[in-house]
Amino acid sequence: MDVSNRRALPGLAYPEDYLKRLADDLAVRFTGIFSLETVERYVLESYAALLRVSRVKAHLATRTVRFAADRLTALAQAKGAVPYEAHEVLFVCVQNAGRSQMAAVLTATLSGGAVHVRSAGSMPSHELNPAVIAVMEELGLSMSQEFPKPLTDDVVQAADVVVTMGCGDACPIYPGKQYQDWDLTDPDGLDIDEVRQIRDDIADRIRTLLAGLGVSAVAL
Amino acid sequence: MDVSNRRALPGLAYPEDYLKRLADDLAVRFTGIFSLETVERYVLESYAALLRVSRVKAHLATRTVRFAADRLTALAQAKGAVPYEAHEVLFVCVQNAGRSQMAAVLTATLSGGAVHVRSAGSMPSHELNPAVIAVMEELGLSMSQEFPKPLTDDVVQAADVVVTMGCGDACPIYPGKQYQDWDLTDPDGLDIDEVRQIRDDIADRIRTLLAGLGVSAVAL
Repeated sequence: MDVSNRRALPGLAYPEDYLKRLADDLAVRFTGIFSLETVERYVLESYAALLRVSRVKAHLATRTVRFAADRLTALAQAKGAVPYEAHEVLFVCVQNAGRSQMAAVLTATLSGGAVHVRSAGSMPSHELNPAVIAVMEELGLSMSQEFPKPLTDDVVQAADVVVTMGCGDACPIYPGKQYQDWDLTDPDGLDIDEVRQIRDDIADRIRTLLAGLGVSAVAL
Repeated sequence: MDVSNRRALPGLAYPEDYLKRLADDLAVRFTGIFSLETVERYVLESYAALLRVSRVKAHLATRTVRFAADRLTALAQAKGAVPYEAHEVLFVCVQNAGRSQMAAVLTATLSGGAVHVRSAGSMPSHELNPAVIAVMEELGLSMSQEFPKPLTDDVVQAADVVVTMGCGDACPIYPGKQYQDWDLTDPDGLDIDEVRQIRDDIADRIRTLLAGLGVSAVAL
């Protein structure tokens, strides 16, 4: 059988041992809630899911741990094993590269931590939209820790408010949650002035959302 | 808070109770291997993953069960809880809509069942390529049970041979597996004559692959 030299192949060497060590560390945080096997599954599947959509591989392991930890926390919340410390709002758009990312960071900031936020995309992009990063930096808000993530079941289960933005049928409507659908322009391909307008539109909607949750918005 | 009427929203009602019943049934097949909780997680996450990429929702529940069952079987094989009954070959392309789908069905057919096959895509498409369905039907091979699926960690773990087709860095190279990278034209957008040539090219490569595995190819 003609098996090609592995080094000549496309694809990234799979850091299985390293990921398993990361899972071991993460499992400590979920002792008594999830088995090591479950945590390891989440880490390995989260890695595979992010790898598929990432062009830059430099931060993949770090992002995997954050994504897996956040999903496991969501799952633990949904099954009542971890208390909700704040309202849980989930923003879902198509690429998780612009609208839902701005909304997540703006909500966390405007709520002064009184709302916990997650975001996801039905068809996640490779990277964040650079114009989005720029207009958020104008407000002093860094997007450097954010990255596009696929919509997973666990984060919807954990949310009490889900805000969808143009993902149509790809966003399932789970029972027992509050939904809002925001009709926002997709910033993909727009110039920075237009993206700035979308950012301000999102900020206005978030102030209304926070008021509805009984949370006072702080000044930006 | 302005919560829109759920029926006015985009998105599909999430059939949580139905999916949980499907998970209950599926869990019986994995008694002593996976907990009901694990099976339920796989069913719900598989549903979310397929929903994100599906345009036609009619077969979603059926496909979810097949996808989840296949992933759980792969996971059980990888951890040694279920014996391998045949060589496990995994085909991975970008969309899992053409090349890897043809390769999977052709390998299952040409091997006469001596090889078990899975396929996946790094960025799965909404549906199979109609030209691919047509040229496979010319050989009397039905693609009606096939659908695009995202590449997941479990199916790579279970494979002993992985054949990649143009997915580049999105295909991780796992240690301990045999790899081949096939340089095939992407049938997306090509006319039926060209797709037929790709099909025949794939069939030839599969005969070589099977010979390398010590499996005699049957006549089509």
